Amino acid sequence: MAKQKKAPRPKAETPKGFRDYFGHEVTTRAEMLRQIAGVYHRYGFDALESSAVETVEALGKFLPDVDRPNEGVFAWQEDEGDWLALRYDLTAPLARVYAQHRNDLPTPYRRYAMGPVWRNEKPGPGRFRQFYQCDADTVGSGSVAADAEICAMLADTLEEVGIPRGDYVVRVNNRKVLNGVLEAMGLGDDQDKRDAVLRTIDKFDKVGEAGVRELLGKGRLDASGAYIDGVGLSDEQAGPVVAFLTSKGADNAATLTNLRAAIGGSAIGGEGVDELEQIADLLAAQGYGPDRIVIDPSVVRGLGYYTGPVFEAELTFEIFDEKGRKRQFGSVAGGGRYDDLVKRFTGQAVPATGVSIGVDRLLAALREKGRIEAREVGPVVVTVMDRDRMADYQAMVAELRQAGIRAEVYLGNLKNFGNQLKYADRRQSPVAVIEGGDEKDRGVVQIKDLILGAQIAETATLEEWKDRPSQFEVPRDQLVAKVREILDAHGL
Amino acid sequence: MAKQKKAPRPKAETPKGFRDYFGHEVTTRAEMLRQIAGVYHRYGFDALESSAVETVEALGKFLPDVDRPNEGVFAWQEDEGDWLALRYDLTAPLARVYAQHRNDLPTPYRRYAMGPVWRNEKPGPGRFRQFYQCDADTVGSGSVAADAEICAMLADTLEEVGIPRGDYVVRVNNRKVLNGVLEAMGLGDDQDKRDAVLRTIDKFDKVGEAGVRELLGKGRLDASGAYIDGVGLSDEQAGPVVAFLTSKGADNAATLTNLRAAIGGSAIGGEGVDELEQIADLLAAQGYGPDRIVIDPSVVRGLGYYTGPVFEAELTFEIFDEKGRKRQFGSVAGGGRYDDLVKRFTGQAVPATGVSIGVDRLLAALREKGRIEAREVGPVVVTVMDRDRMADYQAMVAELRQAGIRAEVYLGNLKNFGNQLKYADRRQSPVAVIEGGDEKDRGVVQIKDLILGAQIAETATLEEWKDRPSQFEVPRDQLVAKVREILDAHGL
Repeated sequence: MAKQKKAPRPKAETPKGFRDYFGHEVTTRAEMLRQIAGVYHRYGFDALESSAVETVEALGKFLPDVDRPNEGVFAWQEDEGDWLALRYDLTAPLARVYAQHRNDLPTPYRRYAMGPVWRNEKPGPGRFRQFYQCDADTVGSGSVAADAEICAMLADTLEEVGIPRGDYVVRVNNRKVLNGVLEAMGLGDDQDKRDAVLRTIDKFDKVGEAGVRELLGKGRLDASGAYIDGVGLSDEQAGPVVAFLTSKGADNAATLTNLRAAIGGSAIGGEGVDELEQIADLLAAQGYGPDRIVIDPSVVRGLGYYTGPVFEAELTFEIFDEKGRKRQFGSVAGGGRYDDLVKRFTGQAVPATGVSIGVDRLLAALREKGRIEAREVGPVVVTVMDRDRMADYQAMVAELRQAGIRAEVYLGNLKNFGNQLKYADRRQSPVAVIEGGDEKDRGVVQIKDLILGAQIAETATLEEWKDRPSQFEVPRDQLVAKVREILDAHGL
Repeated sequence: MAKQKKAPRPKAETPKGFRDYFGHEVTTRAEMLRQIAGVYHRYGFDALESSAVETVEALGKFLPDVDRPNEGVFAWQEDEGDWLALRYDLTAPLARVYAQHRNDLPTPYRRYAMGPVWRNEKPGPGRFRQFYQCDADTVGSGSVAADAEICAMLADTLEEVGIPRGDYVVRVNNRKVLNGVLEAMGLGDDQDKRDAVLRTIDKFDKVGEAGVRELLGKGRLDASGAYIDGVGLSDEQAGPVVAFLTSKGADNAATLTNLRAAIGGSAIGGEGVDELEQIADLLAAQGYGPDRIVIDPSVVRGLGYYTGPVFEAELTFEIFDEKGRKRQFGSVAGGGRYDDLVKRFTGQAVPATGVSIGVDRLLAALREKGRIEAREVGPVVVTVMDRDRMADYQAMVAELRQAGIRAEVYLGNLKNFGNQLKYADRRQSPVAVIEGGDEKDRGVVQIKDLILGAQIAETATLEEWKDRPSQFEVPRDQLVAKVREILDAHGL
């Protein structure tokens, strides 16, 4: 007789590019978001949690005639016909929310938002399709004071979560200055040339001034021996870009002077430099000097929608990369002014400015600096020596919890006592409590200091080990006090 | 010449059945989740945040041959062919996570999870397609001590978030008892009859004992005059159900005695009653009496996957419903033991028990009881009288924030000063600060108590109004102290 075929078992896997977060990863992020929300709130920003699902129409990244509009987003069609998608950032939903609720919201509307966003992109190492963003934006204010406020708040936030002054810098630039430079180059509306120049600017960090000159001109032989075609500009045309890229002076005043020279007579460029000057003045008046916030023309920011000031927060300390080389930690937040996002819905231009913090990178930085413990300490584990006295053990954990101590009874397989200590070990428990029938009769409990025990196991001789100084017998009514004492001794 | 057609503007709307949450709604929920997480953590539960997106295969609700498997979930197909979906609860992902990571996780694995889930259902009033769940589960323990622990933790949690003892009760039942009753009725494997009996049990609250007898027998004329066909059981067959439904005694001991009678000689029923007795004993030993946790045979719980103890937390205070009638607030949490969820993946049965708290209903209950302010107090608003002195105003808010006071500069349209006070009003600001050129020269600021001002405006005569006792002039260096004084006076 043929065996009956069973349905195959489902694979226990996250979809490609997704992952789960466990224990300490979740709680440290939650704690950091709480600290950030505290700063944002103190600055007058209100929380907003928009729905994770939007109509593709509202997200607005897609052509209406594409059959399956899922380029870059996770999208699906409703039975009635609407295409829906998971939000890919927190800014597009903000524009929709503001347009939808503008009659009920204050103007300006300062809001913060934190939560996952989803990108339908090819996953890679350390590159996930669901990740956290944490944004603050001011909608409805065209004042550079709003931009300055965001920069100051960003600096305050980094210090609040544990990045000390000196370990970060907020760098500020202005898209209008860049536009002024392009104008001064006489590129007119030649979008291809403009794009090629922008791409070249992005390479300044790598190739330096001479490299940029070559790339803007005829071209350049790169380190691998390949020849990179240049943009084909004359030396005079390239001049303003080079002046712009090398305009960072000893202080903001010097940088501003250099920028004014780089933009030549461009009106839009002049406006941009004026705005940068006002931002620097406002920040200086509040005590945010260039040790925290600095004008830096090398900040470009990828997104095309920025229309004015742009900012980026960098961590300046060095770390070792996967190949053991020292490098700077780099960017953890960025943002800028974008004045056209709400217009899509209402036809009216609404000025807006904001910042987005890369929560996971910031957490990685704090771990790197040893400001977050890599693993968390587990609960005190009360072992079960006698299954009929479960109520006794439950009473112990209840007492411990009432004293604010994290504690649990072992509820697994009782056949082998070793399992219970292995479990405590896996939980990273600091303390195990043991009460067998003998202890019960004598009114005592055994308390094992598992942290000290592990230390002794690593270093002690057999004689020291036999003394077992990491295990203590105390009267039952001193259980909580002794556990507290051990936790205190380990600074927990 | 024909006008050029513009692309139509996108609608600024959430998809049907979705909504946004603003300000206080977000922060009060976050605070409640933080409190709940604190209790769960103290009980030894670890946080887990699984990915919001799962493979449809892992969620496992759907037939493999359905072309578009989106019944009840939001699902879409990847380019490479996998169907993905948004999680519809936090339990199915837990089963997948445990199966995937079981070699790295402790056993038992106690975990809590909180976050949105999505249901592709017809939206209705107050019924959304994205909502929060907040779960705690113990995977890998078959001990009733794990069930008892969940019940105790649920009681502690409700008290922690602000539901006082006496305003809630955790009711406990056991599916095995119900199975024993069905066995005692002699229904055997007649699934249709079993289902009909279960549906009838659910109506006990409404129709009472006599009604249930009719519905189990020939049928019943309901209040609207319609005749409801009965299940067609004999009086003897119906006996155990009626005994079961009326088994709640004056205390747990009486209830247990009645239940033993109701199940007759059923082995599975006896096992269920034994488990209930053990749970009641364990809880009593820890001081959780029937004022907090009680055995109640009327708890059925909809989900088919429960296999043992089931629990439900009810708030017992009365509220007024939308028609002004008094009714009990009802259920805010429920759960139970489910022993088969992990087996789908691994082939091995893994016992598990857990609870899910309906976060939004619990928040509604706290609002109902006046334990959460309906609206939050806004920031102190520093008005802008002189746009050239923005730095001065920014310095004021910086001082206020450093003193821990929520504050912001008005950054909107400066043409009309009235706008600024309207803005402060819309923000629910408690205080506005005014410093014109005259005040600046004299080294003072005007501080408006907006809460007092609103009270006066409602009740004062014109003379009182003219005195404007809600506005104070203080030296500039007393700004923070005076604002603090006003906030304190309003208990803020």
